Order: sequence, then structure tokens, then C-alpha cells
Amino acid sequence: MTVPYETIDTPALIVDLDRVRANVEEMAAVAARHGVALRPHVKTHKMPELATAQLAAGAAGITCAKLGEAEVMADAGCADILLAYPLWGEPKLERLRALRERARVRVSLDSVEVAEQLGRVAGRAPIEVFVEVDTGLGRLGRPPGRPTAELAGAIEKVPGVRVAGLLTHAGHAYRTTTSEELRRVAEREVTDLVETAGLCGGGLEISVGSTPTARHAAAVPGVTEIRPGTYVFNDATMIRLGVATEATAAARILATVVARPASDRFVVDAGTKCLAADGRPEDIVVAGRPELGMRFLSEEHGVGRCPADGGPEIGERLELIPNHVCPVSNLFDHAHGVRGGAPAGELAVAARGRVR
Amino acid sequence: MTVPYETIDTPALIVDLDRVRANVEEMAAVAARHGVALRPHVKTHKMPELATAQLAAGAAGITCAKLGEAEVMADAGCADILLAYPLWGEPKLERLRALRERARVRVSLDSVEVAEQLGRVAGRAPIEVFVEVDTGLGRLGRPPGRPTAELAGAIEKVPGVRVAGLLTHAGHAYRTTTSEELRRVAEREVTDLVETAGLCGGGLEISVGSTPTARHAAAVPGVTEIRPGTYVFNDATMIRLGVATEATAAARILATVVARPASDRFVVDAGTKCLAADGRPEDIVVAGRPELGMRFLSEEHGVGRCPADGGPEIGERLELIPNHVCPVSNLFDHAHGVRGGAPAGELAVAARGRVR
Repeated sequence: MTVPYETIDTPALIVDLDRVRANVEEMAAVAARHGVALRPHVKTHKMPELATAQLAAGAAGITCAKLGEAEVMADAGCADILLAYPLWGEPKLERLRALRERARVRVSLDSVEVAEQLGRVAGRAPIEVFVEVDTGLGRLGRPPGRPTAELAGAIEKVPGVRVAGLLTHAGHAYRTTTSEELRRVAEREVTDLVETAGLCGGGLEISVGSTPTARHAAAVPGVTEIRPGTYVFNDATMIRLGVATEATAAARILATVVARPASDRFVVDAGTKCLAADGRPEDIVVAGRPELGMRFLSEEHGVGRCPADGGPEIGERLELIPNHVCPVSNLFDHAHGVRGGAPAGELAVAARGRVR
Repeated sequence: MTVPYETIDTPALIVDLDRVRANVEEMAAVAARHGVALRPHVKTHKMPELATAQLAAGAAGITCAKLGEAEVMADAGCADILLAYPLWGEPKLERLRALRERARVRVSLDSVEVAEQLGRVAGRAPIEVFVEVDTGLGRLGRPPGRPTAELAGAIEKVPGVRVAGLLTHAGHAYRTTTSEELRRVAEREVTDLVETAGLCGGGLEISVGSTPTARHAAAVPGVTEIRPGTYVFNDATMIRLGVATEATAAARILATVVARPASDRFVVDAGTKCLAADGRPEDIVVAGRPELGMRFLSEEHGVGRCPADGGPEIGERLELIPNHVCPVSNLFDHAHGVRGGAPAGELAVAARGRVR
């Protein structure tokens, strides 16, 4: 990615639109090849323009984490939304009612209590829900098998609610250390859900797949939908997991070296306010500069290490590939699009900060 | 803090304005008692209303990390600003020129290269700079003593630049584990700078003090200015360091329990997108509920642990005191003010996201 140094002040979020297009098309091809629906999670970019591009490339719909994100994406014309989060409370139910009038909205949950709230929103058409299953992350959901089958049965009895499928997020895939381990997690998230769906009487959708697991999971019999998010940009974690490379990392922080206080130390004008605080600073990739690494981040400072005889000069610019790109998008109001190495306009991160 | 549960949807950033006032007045009294200037760092709140309150309570001026923050604060009437960051590049110099026309602006730096850029902005009046000193954090600045004195001498020779003082940020104070260790760091940051100023020929301002060190440092002979930021809100780290209590923690994330997937686990609707990813999740304080703790955070989920026989119910609200409150303010467009337990209007986080 040749960055137009002259025109973009730092720190800045740079998005290579050619690379985004390639990433979007590659995952769409994976889904098409295996005959599964692709429903990308838009939390990674929070940009209506990129959601639209994902739909144009063949995505069946989108996944959102928050009502506020879904509202922004519906404004941009997204007509089929999975709200992968348990909603609670009258203000959100009221917004869900309004959102359902302009988009198909399905919601995930893991309790009868939430189902009973959602049932009140049904109106003439029941609200379709996905029951979330804990396939190892230990966050939402009951374990697969009988515990989930019992929960799904109880939810199905709630007036106004119809169980459309089972859903999981195998976030523990991010903690794997070998490609074989990663593949096992991906296969397991599908087979766990397929077996559980059998106990439920069948006919349920099976929705799985983070970026590291999606390509494997799409190939396992029984899966109907994959929901990767990070693949649109990739990040240092995806590189570490072997599912991306520096070349496919489409979103980067452009930063300037503002200090060289010691021969083996440099400081750039990007800290956690640009790169987020996720992961270990030393895992952040300084693109094209394998001799450089980050030591620690403050909010506005990125402190790096360099060879004593070959460090960057004050004023030099570096591109940093963050550990986790999703929270990075959330820190910027605008990203700078780049195409063919030239500036290609700003991208509004319109769903940034939609915490509710 | 009695939160008006009925009117505020979650997750939300709640600011107890009575507690803020007490925190602001207490630190102003510390500075007044020791005859030092108080120049609070506004990055903690990024709210013009609170900067104005700090000035009204006696602060001599404010500290900003970024030009964008300083511009917002100047818009709000702040007339004396320390920009505690080395500026680089023509776009920023141009903005600095404009900012100097409506406020007194001084800038910190640690290199001749940055000084030479700043000198071009001088116009009729030289630009006043603070030379940053590394008193142990290992971020910006050279070590105290001769290395810094030599640097200050070289900077003083740059046309258009006048060295007004020495400055340090003893961020390593956050890593101390005893109050005695903390006191030593605070005393050291002053004595290091005072000795260095002596080598420079004297007459320099001595600007020090983070929230954990400010109360100690203000009492050490030679200091002229303290720059604490976090004290306005406090956070779980300040509680751990013994310089705040749960009662003085004025900013909290109000969250709702959205799931109880296991008897010893609850999930709230606040993850790193509200609490930031700084520090260890288990150090986050669940206010007033010592039996509850956080296990891990995803972006939108806070996964907590609870006693199997006494966990919170779905729909229950909790107040979480974040590990590091400064990046939390940066995640919200608005905070909800609370006064006397009742809603007191929204506060605009007007300097949020000013990365440049």
C-alpha cells in the first residue's frame, strides 16, 4: 500500500479499498463454493459503504452487535439483519419494533427471559430468534446437546417467538496456536450445533464462523451460514493465526515518528487511542519493517524498539497493523480510503460509538 | 450514586457531578496549600464543561495531549494551554499558528528537530517550550541531569524558541505496589527535575504530577506546577493505588445483566467498547457489589463471575468502575450527568476522537 504521505496528516486510519475488495470477494467465494450463506459481522468496519459492498459481492445479509449499528445499516439500505445480541428493556424493544418495519430482523438470545420480552414485539409476525450455544468460549449460551435443546424448546413455547436456528461464536479460536487446533475448533462448532439441532427436531439454521474458523466451518456438512467480520480488514491476530498476511491487512494506522529519545527507542504519534489496547503491543506489526517492533502503548504514544544503528528518523512515517482491528474502527469518525496507492476519499465510520 | 434507572438506557457513561466537584476542589486545595499551579490534563474527560469547572475552581490553565483537544478547549474559552506533545509537520504547525492567536499555548518536546519546526511558528513572540525528561517511564525524554541539560541548551539556541521549563510524566507510578514506593516516585520526579534545572542555570518551571503522584509532588520544594488528569473522575487503578475510593469514583459504566448462562456466570451489555481494554478485567470494580467480579471482556460483552447462590438477575443493573477512565471517555459522544441522584443533563464529550 503506497500511502500518499503528502496529503494525509497522522495519526490516521488508512483503508486500502483494492485490498478490501479482494478480501470481500474471497470470503464470498468461500461461501458460494460450499453453498452456505455469508452474513458478515459489520462491527469490524461500521461503515455503510463497506456493508453495501459486502452485499453486492453476494452476502445474504449482515450481522450487527447493537441496535444502533443495525439502525445505521438499515438507513444505508441493508434489508436483512441478524442482531446477534440479547436485547433487554423497553427503550430497545421500541426501537426493535420500528426497525422491523423497514428490515428483516432476527435476534439471538440465550434465555427464556429475553425471549419473553422479544415476544411482546411480535405484532402479526412472530419474531425469529437464534438460540446461542456455548461451544467453548464461556460467554453466552448453554453447552450444546440436551441443555441447549431444552432451552430451545422452552423458548419455542414463548408466545410471539419462533426459533429459527442455533448460533455460536467460537471466539476461543483466537486462542489456538496451531492450524490443526484451529481446524478442530471450526469443525466442532458446526458438529456441536448440528447434533443439538437434531435433538430439537431438525429444520433449524446453523449459524457459525468467525474469521479464523469460517473457511473451515463452511466446508462441514450441516452449516447453513457463516458470520465472519474481521476478514474485511484483517489484523495482526489474523496474521498470527495464519489466516491473513501482511499483504492482506487492509486497514492500518499511519503514524509519524515524533521522538527518538534513545538510540534503541522511537515514539510514534499513535497509542491506544488509535490502536486500541487489545493484545500485546509487541504483536503489533510495523508493516514492511520487520526490524521494528512496539514495546508499549500509552493513549497517545506508541513506544517502539529499533536496532541502535538503524532506527527511523523523526518525521518518518510508519504503517502499523493493529492486533484487533474492530475496536480500532470504533475510535475514528472517518477513515482515509486509498486505491491504487492514491487517496480515494474519506469513509464515514457511521456506526461508530453505537453502544446501545 | 443513586442512578435514575428509569430514564437512562444502558450501557451508559454516568458522571456524578457532585462527586466531580468535590474531586476538583480537593485537588485545587492541594495545589493552593503548597503554592503550586494546577494545570489539569483534560484528556481524562474531554468535556469543555468540566475544563471550565476546573478553571473556575482555581486551575491556572489546562494540559492537552492533542491539537484537536486544545482547539475544542480554546473554543470553550480556555486561554492558557500546555500542549504536552511533540508536534510535527506542516498541517499541525499551521493549526498551532492559528491556535496561538486565541490562547497562550506552550508545547513540550524532547528533540532539537521538533524545536526547529516549532521555531518557524514563532512570529513576533518566541514559542515557549517545556523540555520533557524521562524520570523512569522510558517513553519520551532523555534522562535527568547532564543529558537533558545538554538538550535544553541546544533547544534554547533554536531561533524562535524559548525554554520555559522542564516537564515529566512519571507514568511508572501506576506500576507501584506500595504507598511508600509511590511517594518515592513522586519525590524523585521533582528532585530529578530541580537538579537538572540547576544545571540549566535555573529559572525554569518544574512541571510534574500524575494523579497518583500529584499530592506528594506538590509538597516537594522546587515544583512549580502539577498536571494530574484522572483525579476528576478516578478509576479502579486509582483505587488500587490508594489515592481514591469507590466513593470518589465519579465516572461509571451503567450496564444491564443480559444473560445468566451458568449459575456462576453473568453477562452485562458493556465490554471493551464501553470499558476499554486497559488493565485486567478482574480489577474492574462492580460498585457496591464486592461479591461480583469480571472475568473477561469482549467488545460488547462483560462476562462476570458470581456466587452460584447469589448472582444478579437478567435485567438487573450494575455500575462498573473502569480500570482506566481516560480511554472510556473517548468511547462516548455523551455522558449522562447525575446530581444528587437525579439526572442532570447530558455532557458532550466534545474533544472525543481528536486523534490529531
